[in-house]
Amino acid sequence: MANDKKMVEQITSMDEDFAQWYTDIVKKADLIDYSSVKGCMIIRPYGYAIWENIQKIMDARFKETGVENVYMPLFIPESLLNKEKDHVEGFAPEVAWVTHGGSEPLTERLCVRPTSETLFCEHYANIIKSYRDLPKLYNQWCSVVRWEKTTRPFLRSREFLWQEGHTMHATAEESEAETLKMLDVYADFFEKDLAIPVIKGRKTDKEKFAGAIATYTVEALMHDGKALQGGTSHNFGDGFARAFNIQYLDRDNKLKFCHQTSWGVSTRIIGAIIMTHGDNNGLVLPPAIAPVQVVIVPVQMQKEGVLDTANELKQRISKIARVKLDDSDNSPGWKYAEYEMKGVPLRVEIGPRDIENGQCVIVRRDNREKTFVKFDELEKAISEQLEALNNSIYEKALDNRTKRTYTETDLTSFIETAKTKSGYIRAHWCGSEECELKLKELADVTSRCMPFGEQGEHGRCICCGKETDKLVYWGKAY
Amino acid sequence: MANDKKMVEQITSMDEDFAQWYTDIVKKADLIDYSSVKGCMIIRPYGYAIWENIQKIMDARFKETGVENVYMPLFIPESLLNKEKDHVEGFAPEVAWVTHGGSEPLTERLCVRPTSETLFCEHYANIIKSYRDLPKLYNQWCSVVRWEKTTRPFLRSREFLWQEGHTMHATAEESEAETLKMLDVYADFFEKDLAIPVIKGRKTDKEKFAGAIATYTVEALMHDGKALQGGTSHNFGDGFARAFNIQYLDRDNKLKFCHQTSWGVSTRIIGAIIMTHGDNNGLVLPPAIAPVQVVIVPVQMQKEGVLDTANELKQRISKIARVKLDDSDNSPGWKYAEYEMKGVPLRVEIGPRDIENGQCVIVRRDNREKTFVKFDELEKAISEQLEALNNSIYEKALDNRTKRTYTETDLTSFIETAKTKSGYIRAHWCGSEECELKLKELADVTSRCMPFGEQGEHGRCICCGKETDKLVYWGKAY
Repeated sequence: MANDKKMVEQITSMDEDFAQWYTDIVKKADLIDYSSVKGCMIIRPYGYAIWENIQKIMDARFKETGVENVYMPLFIPESLLNKEKDHVEGFAPEVAWVTHGGSEPLTERLCVRPTSETLFCEHYANIIKSYRDLPKLYNQWCSVVRWEKTTRPFLRSREFLWQEGHTMHATAEESEAETLKMLDVYADFFEKDLAIPVIKGRKTDKEKFAGAIATYTVEALMHDGKALQGGTSHNFGDGFARAFNIQYLDRDNKLKFCHQTSWGVSTRIIGAIIMTHGDNNGLVLPPAIAPVQVVIVPVQMQKEGVLDTANELKQRISKIARVKLDDSDNSPGWKYAEYEMKGVPLRVEIGPRDIENGQCVIVRRDNREKTFVKFDELEKAISEQLEALNNSIYEKALDNRTKRTYTETDLTSFIETAKTKSGYIRAHWCGSEECELKLKELADVTSRCMPFGEQGEHGRCICCGKETDKLVYWGKAY
Repeated sequence: MANDKKMVEQITSMDEDFAQWYTDIVKKADLIDYSSVKGCMIIRPYGYAIWENIQKIMDARFKETGVENVYMPLFIPESLLNKEKDHVEGFAPEVAWVTHGGSEPLTERLCVRPTSETLFCEHYANIIKSYRDLPKLYNQWCSVVRWEKTTRPFLRSREFLWQEGHTMHATAEESEAETLKMLDVYADFFEKDLAIPVIKGRKTDKEKFAGAIATYTVEALMHDGKALQGGTSHNFGDGFARAFNIQYLDRDNKLKFCHQTSWGVSTRIIGAIIMTHGDNNGLVLPPAIAPVQVVIVPVQMQKEGVLDTANELKQRISKIARVKLDDSDNSPGWKYAEYEMKGVPLRVEIGPRDIENGQCVIVRRDNREKTFVKFDELEKAISEQLEALNNSIYEKALDNRTKRTYTETDLTSFIETAKTKSGYIRAHWCGSEECELKLKELADVTSRCMPFGEQGEHGRCICCGKETDKLVYWGKAY
């Protein structure tokens, strides 16, 4: 082939070195680039297009529940951050501080928002007067900064993109209901749109958000058996409302404190997609968020009719899916490898012999299964194959999680499993932070969550042996 | 009416105090709120919904021209900002500096991006190798920070939202063509979607962007006769490419420097909309970006059939426009004032007598013109009235500009006009910065732009009398 393009390079095998495999994919699939800004990433067009699709779907789901978008300042004055004690303790050690504007030192330093509870609270205190003003359901899409020591693209970076919802309610019941409603929105998005099975549950007090009374989470298990917190939803009760004096005049003419939630997902999601569905040929993207859902690769495209037919197929497919026709002068083999690396769900191959037979070939990204499809069944086949792929990758991820979930009732065996296997360990826990810390020390695991629907059954704390009805999934986390 | 909602308050008359009128609108129409972060604004749901509509339309237009979105880091290391001399001189005095991460001082301070040329350049230097990699057409939607001394919501704030396009090309011709193409995209958006007439032209060297060889602008004239720069498009030539060593291997096997553009519009646009179309009753929003295009206000809604009919109308209108039915217990009069304040283009009134007559009333926001519309002509009437309003407000703005454009050929008269009128002054100019500065001193005006299509005609510089074919629009600007 007469071309000077890079050859599609091999990536490290995931079994050999999972971390290197991950890094290879984020680079070779053109998701990110590094820059001279240490710990921050450049999200390249292909990576950003994935984020745009994620935003579009989630934003619509939020708005269906009545959520409105706003934009809060990037900066938080130090005195404002300091208003809620637990919150500032949680975040102050990892914020970036602005100390100068132009050549002048600031009279008060400003932190670059690590999260915006304090700003939302200040605003809510301003605009909420009466029960008629409630609930307030705000969200913002923005970037936040946390000064992490070690960073990895998407998983942990000093700056990342996210959405943060912040809502205010009249009663404790309403804020708890909102917290769980948004957790359901996340769970549904993960399961349906990302084909990632998640476990919904509650965080232990040690792992909950700084300032929350309860943090709920959707937890996903990556291919290597490590856990990833996919999205979190926090109920703050009236703690911040008291610190920021957010009160409303109720129907009974009494001033009452508001009850508050916040909930967020970030560009970490892209890391979760890579590590749940990817394989040794690169990314595998769930159709809902794939920038290109179908790529058409013409074979022997110099032959008469091939490009015309490819273009006709493109026209037809464009009505039901995001489609790209690659008519560049790279070889078909190069193109196959390139779009496999980029995780394009379906590839349509079309050459002279196919045209003679009135058909084309659809190849699925996940299992490379080929299907010959008559032209008049094209749209039906594309839709079916996209759905089949989505179901398959979901089932595969679920299988992985099932295989990697271990139940332990004995400490020695718990430690042995933690040391020799990688996955979730189900075990009862008494509720004390002491036992949590001890398990961290002995087995190097943390509590991932207390899954809904698995609580209430009696057992003995895996650590201290005390009777309890709390069950925890333990694991190592990204 | 039994309700405890605020009454719609009067705003300051625009003829009495234009600046206060503006401030009243941004507050009373719920566009923004202030916070303890000095010089930064909170964009509230109604204001942000306008911005979302602007983004959606512009983003689609950008993508039609082949532009892809990316995300660059929020921070720029000082050494990177310093790489292009003119650029750093232009921006360094007004950037915010991050000096600490957590409790540790940084080894190199980072500025919060005031614009991202330097980051894009560093990235482009990394990824552009061959003529095959060109053009690169990237854009990002983000917030930027400029440490302004005096601030006003939307018009000048320390943080604002914008898009910044950054493109790389093989030749000088291509970068110039791109610069002008994006200027056209802006002009078209202003004229068609915002109903704001603009003048396309080139900035003088004094007013051009720090580091550019040419800056083009779309300039709009506000109701009070002050000019507002709506969007700018810059051709950088190969200046940054040389500073950042961005070279590509051309077909002739020679290494060549890239040619570069950047172009941006910001939340200032919202300020322009307010000051072009607003009146003493509040905002007037062009339909394309209005969060609510039609509001239905039921009259005597406790009467049988009124709310049902209102809901039916809503269903029908929702297929062709963004519609809201306000069935709250506020009085119709309160609702009229509220949605006039918020600039909703059309109001539909429906009461028992209308229902008897098989009709409703459509009231236009701009001129309060009422039209009785038979139910079966509803959709047609809504579409027509939206278009009519859009045309009317455009024409009104154009009229204002025409009336406020003065041509001067004599310095004394120029100064007199500058002191007694408010608008554009058309006058020839020799091209020297000296004369530009002198006019600033004598008449307190700056050059807004050298309009396309008005150059080449001979005249004498308004300041020094030298023969020239350059014509400049002068004015006072936001």
